[in-house]
Amino acid sequence: MSHRIDLNSDLGEGYGAWKMGDDATMLGIVSSANVACGFHAGDPLTILTTVREAAARGVAIGAHVSYPDRVGFGRRPMDVTSAELTADVIYQIGALQGVCAAAGTRVRYVKPHGALYNTIATDARQADAVIAAIREIDPALILMGLSGTPVLDRARDAGLATVAEAFADRGYTPDGQLVSRRLPGAVLHDAEAVAARMLRLATEGTLAAADGSTLRLAADSICIHGDSPDAVGMARRVREVLVANGVTIASFAGVAG
Amino acid sequence: MSHRIDLNSDLGEGYGAWKMGDDATMLGIVSSANVACGFHAGDPLTILTTVREAAARGVAIGAHVSYPDRVGFGRRPMDVTSAELTADVIYQIGALQGVCAAAGTRVRYVKPHGALYNTIATDARQADAVIAAIREIDPALILMGLSGTPVLDRARDAGLATVAEAFADRGYTPDGQLVSRRLPGAVLHDAEAVAARMLRLATEGTLAAADGSTLRLAADSICIHGDSPDAVGMARRVREVLVANGVTIASFAGVAG
Amino acid sequence: MSHRIDLNSDLGEGYGAWKMGDDATMLGIVSSANVACGFHAGDPLTILTTVREAAARGVAIGAHVSYPDRVGFGRRPMDVTSAELTADVIYQIGALQGVCAAAGTRVRYVKPHGALYNTIATDARQADAVIAAIREIDPALILMGLSGTPVLDRARDAGLATVAEAFADRGYTPDGQLVSRRLPGAVLHDAEAVAARMLRLATEGTLAAADGSTLRLAADSICIHGDSPDAVGMARRVREVLVANGVTIASFAGVAG
Amino acid sequence: MSHRIDLNSDLGEGYGAWKMGDDATMLGIVSSANVACGFHAGDPLTILTTVREAAARGVAIGAHVSYPDRVGFGRRPMDVTSAELTADVIYQIGALQGVCAAAGTRVRYVKPHGALYNTIATDARQADAVIAAIREIDPALILMGLSGTPVLDRARDAGLATVAEAFADRGYTPDGQLVSRRLPGAVLHDAEAVAARMLRLATEGTLAAADGSTLRLAADSICIHGDSPDAVGMARRVREVLVANGVTIASFAGVAG
Repeated sequence: MSHRIDLNSDLGEGYGAWKMGDDATMLGIVSSANVACGFHAGDPLTILTTVREAAARGVAIGAHVSYPDRVGFGRRPMDVTSAELTADVIYQIGALQGVCAAAGTRVRYVKPHGALYNTIATDARQADAVIAAIREIDPALILMGLSGTPVLDRARDAGLATVAEAFADRGYTPDGQLVSRRLPGAVLHDAEAVAARMLRLATEGTLAAADGSTLRLAADSICIHGDSPDAVGMARRVREVLVANGVTIASFAGVAG
Repeated sequence: MSHRIDLNSDLGEGYGAWKMGDDATMLGIVSSANVACGFHAGDPLTILTTVREAAARGVAIGAHVSYPDRVGFGRRPMDVTSAELTADVIYQIGALQGVCAAAGTRVRYVKPHGALYNTIATDARQADAVIAAIREIDPALILMGLSGTPVLDRARDAGLATVAEAFADRGYTPDGQLVSRRLPGAVLHDAEAVAARMLRLATEGTLAAADGSTLRLAADSICIHGDSPDAVGMARRVREVLVANGVTIASFAGVAG
Repeated sequence: MSHRIDLNSDLGEGYGAWKMGDDATMLGIVSSANVACGFHAGDPLTILTTVREAAARGVAIGAHVSYPDRVGFGRRPMDVTSAELTADVIYQIGALQGVCAAAGTRVRYVKPHGALYNTIATDARQADAVIAAIREIDPALILMGLSGTPVLDRARDAGLATVAEAFADRGYTPDGQLVSRRLPGAVLHDAEAVAARMLRLATEGTLAAADGSTLRLAADSICIHGDSPDAVGMARRVREVLVANGVTIASFAGVAG
Repeated sequence: MSHRIDLNSDLGEGYGAWKMGDDATMLGIVSSANVACGFHAGDPLTILTTVREAAARGVAIGAHVSYPDRVGFGRRPMDVTSAELTADVIYQIGALQGVCAAAGTRVRYVKPHGALYNTIATDARQADAVIAAIREIDPALILMGLSGTPVLDRARDAGLATVAEAFADRGYTPDGQLVSRRLPGAVLHDAEAVAARMLRLATEGTLAAADGSTLRLAADSICIHGDSPDAVGMARRVREVLVANGVTIASFAGVAG
């Protein structure tokens, strides 16, 4: 029996003279690139450069949409109105679609970033504003969200396709939630352990929760980070172990055409 | 013999709580709306609102792309690199295309704004960067520029369709250039005189230059302003006089579908 | 017995080409100007122009500090860290102090704007971050806040002078809170009634709550708006009625020197 | 005979989550810190952190003012009006003064950044706008500029103190101008050679021009970079060689009190 999973990472997160992460290297590791759209990171030239490189490598492109908060890197919850949020998400997806068209490729999915990602996981009003934006600009776009969160159900109920992701380097509670960053065990640092953990997830659909119990987790994609040399090393190790054990790394979207 | 001309105006130029111009009224007057794309003006919600209204009224939508200079309203020349400018223009067109898709319409043309408009009229390097952006994102988009300026030739040589525009309220030198704003006669204030002048342009292809000589001017579109009650009054009068004399006001682009 | 009260209004809220309110007129009505510091509104030239005019008219200047959210006009709650908020407030006060120095005047007080104003009224963590900022940059600055809210007590406990304000055009609950904008009676529109109400507040320290009961309210300043012709008219009427009845309109800060 | 010179470097150039350069290390090498003021780089918290550290180490602080162009890192010439530029510079100096006050120190000098630095070296109109800003906010502030450029004369004629700087890693033409970055020899990469060159400049007031001729250069300060490991290494080596040869590294401003 063959197994298959997507690896995704946040890319295009420089801004003008400022760089973040090693996009070129990560594009050799992942199958999906969450590309910044300018609201938390990503100036047009950085975005275009990242998209061209992703297209050249056959990596699927997702719109990493955010609250409009560059100085806060989109990490700060904002109480925006639904109309504002819907328009902001449409604008960002459109901008990335335009860049993709110029690079001969297209946007396959939408992954909200940072505080927006966390907020819509459970906040129905903001979730609906994001879902409305996707439906209005292109209902064929797939919404990526945290495995097990209500936003994925709301999106499916609204007719959108969804993708559930797991975080490679995060601990999980026995009921499938991320261990709070304020608690020990929130972030995992051992690349070998993380790689073994992701292999089990990709092949058995389970992983060890923080209390040692077995957690069943439905995940179509694994989020890995590339914002430090250690992170790149872990990402590379996850890929190597998956591939060595016969797991196919491929976008959920398909990238032909 | 029937005459036909387009009327265009700058719209969607509010930003958040700040308003500019009377978009709703102007959309009842013009056949083409140059919609701000966020770099000199236009937040996503303002843009979306303007685009929805334009679509409802059958007004053609153009991308009013700018240098990234919101505090200067895109009016200050900037020495950007070609790569930056191309990416900035692609991003802005894409964002507006996305908003248009959400509103069930699409972008028909591109009109650079303010200092970018003036610069590319004669600066070949920046002109080529804008032309490259249009070709890369969608070569079917039409470039609007000032009648008689080299940028239009460069664009046609590169395979783009172009539209030449005249300014309703500006004086012209005998050789077809705008009278400098530092000189008397640069800006015309008499709505009746302006309307008569535009009627002559639409029907005979001529207007009186600043020295009284007859200037032949090829213009497919007339730019009118709506950023003050007087401006709206003049715009309305231009339309009335044209229509009363049998001139058809219609977009050069067509807006069906 | 003589009565005295301050009138304050939000000024300098344009941004580049965008205007808001009628600063010149309002500076002839108020004794204190809450001047935008660039984070929700106010580019440097607009701020400088407003400050020069305020100085020329002997109007006291306050720093109208905000969350960094220009497109949202500072009206959207943001979950910023304390360190970010303290630094943001220091930066904004400093910028306005610099502009005031250039105009030969100085900042007398700090009034948080919009969502920040509302949040710190009751959120102790963010309140403390703002209080820390004022203490660090200049502990002689006065904090202006909503009459009866805990932030004023916290500020005084920290050694700052405070000023309590009432809103001229807002209804109050019997326990001294503002009637929610979602309820009827939140905003008052009758200029004569508002002026009479503010006269009673200035001379007796009371006003009629939404249920008709008498509310005792300690207010050193009255906030009036100038962002529409109606608002300016109401502001002027409030001033006229106060002055006609012997109430002195004067800054709480004194503006000599 | 004892020699003395200042070493300055650009610091505080991160922005939110983005870092640039190694401020902590550079503050152990330089005697003057050109601190970003928010227009090309530097969010308030980054600025505050840098200023606190500079104050703790007795490093003099200068305002590194810029055009408002964060995405272009202030490197792109902009044709701003004099009134805009004066207000922008006042605002930035004021903001940094406020941060310095909060950190128990103060701004000693002003060094325009990037495109503004280059433009005012020879553009009299923009130079005068910057000079006016300094005179209006605090005429005791010192203007730092490129050795031998007219802006320094204009500033002195206007009553400002000035400091001339040389660039450690740049080649010079025989007439004392920087070798254009488009030509070979514009940037020097050999740390030992650069250190020896700066020693000669500090002790003899001369250096070898690109054609090998001896150039006499009046410089009170040497600008060194810290935006890469190589740059930090060169900066450290310049300091070591100067100190080992008896040159005192000290701010031109004095930093006591």
